[in-house]
Amino acid sequence: MTFPSHQKLISFAFFLSIGILAITGVSNAQQTGKTPPNFIIIFADDLGYGDLGVFGNPTIRTPHLDQMAYEGQKWTNFYVAAPVCTPSRAGLLTGRLPIRSGMTSDKRGVLFPDSKGGLPQSELSLAKALKSKGYQTAAVGKWHLGHLSPHLPTDHGFDSYFGIPYSNDMNRTESIEGKNWIDAQIQLAEEERFQVYNVPLMRNKEIIEQPTDQRTLTKRYTEETIAQIKEMKDGPFFIYLAHSLPHIPLFRSEEFKNVSQAGIYGDVIEEIDWSVGQILQTLKDEGLAENTLVVFTSDNGPWHIFKSQGGSAGMLRGAKGGTFEGGLRVPTIFWWPEKLKRGVVMDMGTTLDILPTFTKLAGAELPKDREYDGYDISPLLFGTGKSQREVVFYYHGTQVRALRWGDYKAHFITQNEYGFQTAHPITTPPSEIPNQKTPQDPPLLFNVSVDPGERYNIAENHPDIIAEIRRILEAHLATLKPVENQLEK
Amino acid sequence: MTFPSHQKLISFAFFLSIGILAITGVSNAQQTGKTPPNFIIIFADDLGYGDLGVFGNPTIRTPHLDQMAYEGQKWTNFYVAAPVCTPSRAGLLTGRLPIRSGMTSDKRGVLFPDSKGGLPQSELSLAKALKSKGYQTAAVGKWHLGHLSPHLPTDHGFDSYFGIPYSNDMNRTESIEGKNWIDAQIQLAEEERFQVYNVPLMRNKEIIEQPTDQRTLTKRYTEETIAQIKEMKDGPFFIYLAHSLPHIPLFRSEEFKNVSQAGIYGDVIEEIDWSVGQILQTLKDEGLAENTLVVFTSDNGPWHIFKSQGGSAGMLRGAKGGTFEGGLRVPTIFWWPEKLKRGVVMDMGTTLDILPTFTKLAGAELPKDREYDGYDISPLLFGTGKSQREVVFYYHGTQVRALRWGDYKAHFITQNEYGFQTAHPITTPPSEIPNQKTPQDPPLLFNVSVDPGERYNIAENHPDIIAEIRRILEAHLATLKPVENQLEK
Repeated sequence: MTFPSHQKLISFAFFLSIGILAITGVSNAQQTGKTPPNFIIIFADDLGYGDLGVFGNPTIRTPHLDQMAYEGQKWTNFYVAAPVCTPSRAGLLTGRLPIRSGMTSDKRGVLFPDSKGGLPQSELSLAKALKSKGYQTAAVGKWHLGHLSPHLPTDHGFDSYFGIPYSNDMNRTESIEGKNWIDAQIQLAEEERFQVYNVPLMRNKEIIEQPTDQRTLTKRYTEETIAQIKEMKDGPFFIYLAHSLPHIPLFRSEEFKNVSQAGIYGDVIEEIDWSVGQILQTLKDEGLAENTLVVFTSDNGPWHIFKSQGGSAGMLRGAKGGTFEGGLRVPTIFWWPEKLKRGVVMDMGTTLDILPTFTKLAGAELPKDREYDGYDISPLLFGTGKSQREVVFYYHGTQVRALRWGDYKAHFITQNEYGFQTAHPITTPPSEIPNQKTPQDPPLLFNVSVDPGERYNIAENHPDIIAEIRRILEAHLATLKPVENQLEK
Repeated sequence: MTFPSHQKLISFAFFLSIGILAITGVSNAQQTGKTPPNFIIIFADDLGYGDLGVFGNPTIRTPHLDQMAYEGQKWTNFYVAAPVCTPSRAGLLTGRLPIRSGMTSDKRGVLFPDSKGGLPQSELSLAKALKSKGYQTAAVGKWHLGHLSPHLPTDHGFDSYFGIPYSNDMNRTESIEGKNWIDAQIQLAEEERFQVYNVPLMRNKEIIEQPTDQRTLTKRYTEETIAQIKEMKDGPFFIYLAHSLPHIPLFRSEEFKNVSQAGIYGDVIEEIDWSVGQILQTLKDEGLAENTLVVFTSDNGPWHIFKSQGGSAGMLRGAKGGTFEGGLRVPTIFWWPEKLKRGVVMDMGTTLDILPTFTKLAGAELPKDREYDGYDISPLLFGTGKSQREVVFYYHGTQVRALRWGDYKAHFITQNEYGFQTAHPITTPPSEIPNQKTPQDPPLLFNVSVDPGERYNIAENHPDIIAEIRRILEAHLATLKPVENQLEK
């Protein structure tokens, strides 16, 4: 069998112009007479499944996230739309797989400082959808969906923006490629040489600092978020706080130096945990807790290759950039005191579900001229129903390399992209671990409920399940339409 | 350098008779005028570091243990005395490394049905120490410290005993060795053929059922424990509940069949979680919660070789039988409402510390004629002080194969004993994974705080730390005295 390819479909550089349907309909909020809830998304960068105390980390102390999970819902089967930054963020903010918006590529995994493209205006962002229902909106933190107009946050429905427009390791002034770029970056973090990363800090569309002093970024994002909460507290409001960290290079403020038992990486996570505590406390102090739904999650798995500065996927296999569970399954907590059904949710959920859920709760309807890849998960949040989601697609660029259907996950192509995923290299340096792309025919099949570590291939005993997964994949591929690729511009 | 061996020391079959000093002194309880606390130890069998929700498992639901941790203390750096059953249990109940009691061997890892030896009468068990202060005592569950007198629980200070005297996979009536003993046992569990394991169930010194119907064991242990709590509620009391499971073969009662998303293994853990809930609820209902210290832990890491019936060490490397973290670091929760300082404890602790701590709280003094390997950890429980523990020894039989000193752990000998520890075998069957014993010189060195997965060997940069660890090891070996080996009898 050959793996069904849909690369041809998108190789047309065909500009599909999509008109946005007017958003109409009577909102839930109007129906019930209640104020629609406020929303806050806290999105960490490269935070692994195993990096929080409440998700099993033994030495990183996260009391505020642990408490958030205890008061709210811990989701243990929650996924992102892609295992790298730009496409994952496009999926979150549009509710659509990034291949539908042209925000993923096999040539360039993410946007770079020399990129011209970004999230197209034809896409309806969550911010824009909520604005239509009277929401005030603010984006804080890393954007990475295009740093030129009309791709910036304020082009996409955010009233304000404060943050860095792409990854914190970009735009370097010193060449560290070649010899040992991994150790070089670890050392830059240890020496706090943030100046080597000439990353701009923006306020709306203006650069206000360059290079950004990354040591105080988490703190400044937190202050901005708290200021926005207070500014917009008459509501409803939506804040998208996308931390730049723990993506390498790692920096933390003076107060968090050496506080963790887990080194610089632990310090960085503990500062983010502090930030979460500050935000939730502000909501409580302002009397907003009972009308604000907060979600904490990550954009993709940990970047293992940076060793002890690279985080952990816990018991999951794989990491950032790959399509084993560690690449796309992320530690996720929903919080809304007195509203959510507290506990652990093991149903599948994805960041693609956030837009349909939040717009439903806000009473906004979605345009009918396009495919959405998410579901309203509010029945799970309130404990009133089950998940509609039966399938998760594991995209790598424009390829579906794996597909989960219920408890079963089939891998059509495997690749140990960022080192370390399949072995603990005692004696083997990371560079010597093979990194080849390997088609699997028959596909590898795992029961990821019983075997979350993807250890025990059961393909041989389940040809029927593999056949059904192939059918689901074909049906999905048939829904894709050619669009202009934004990452290759 | 050659690894310092002390095997010669114990190869003398030298019977060291140690008189037990009279236990004297004014108890803490007498000093404060308060009733000494009740103690319950809940000891799971082969439960891995990653097998509970609160320790990061994504599909095994453990609401009662999660709640126990939330109300109490979750310990993330807690170890056992050995990575297999018999020596681990000897360490727990004596507070002494099993090499000191002759309860470990390089020839036979544990006691078998044909063994004649067991915990010597010269050892002072926790039960006997507490009895001296007026405690009522009960043992429930798996013993595995000798199934012949004078090695049984009631020979060692327990007023009563209800349980199986050795492992639940022993005394088989069908030979399944040879061809594929792993899959054969998995299948026996699936078919619920408990009769193949001709394990006796004992009440005190009498066999009351053989083969034990293992399907209802967890339930019957729970009923026995609750009955003992009610019987002894005027206190003080000590109950040692050592579950036979999740050691293979896996059995669970009718009510727990297919309740878990994680297969039979998940069902078994969820029944143990239910059991914990029942016990804690009984303490609350009987008004005993505020005077009862409960600890939940495991005897060693998971037995990976049994695949999806074999549990998980989470992000830790290694498993049962090995001296990587997954073999000896166990998920541990202390609970004592209104008394303990709630939260996460990242200090090192071990099961060797339980005897010194409990006897201290009970006001019992320990004999002075022998070495103890534990510390009173009550300052950590109450949040009044730090841990005295700086060192953990990772014994494999009679050898110290690794040693943790503070954040650093040196491996002198490595071995992938039970398969799977260093690789996720997609294509390699477990039998083909090399299992050789490998001396490491210089030793591997990991910072297990920053790198709990033991991935990044930093020996090259820290010769000073390795030298200090060698010094600590030599000093420790000098404290060992020859004793009769009980496992080889």
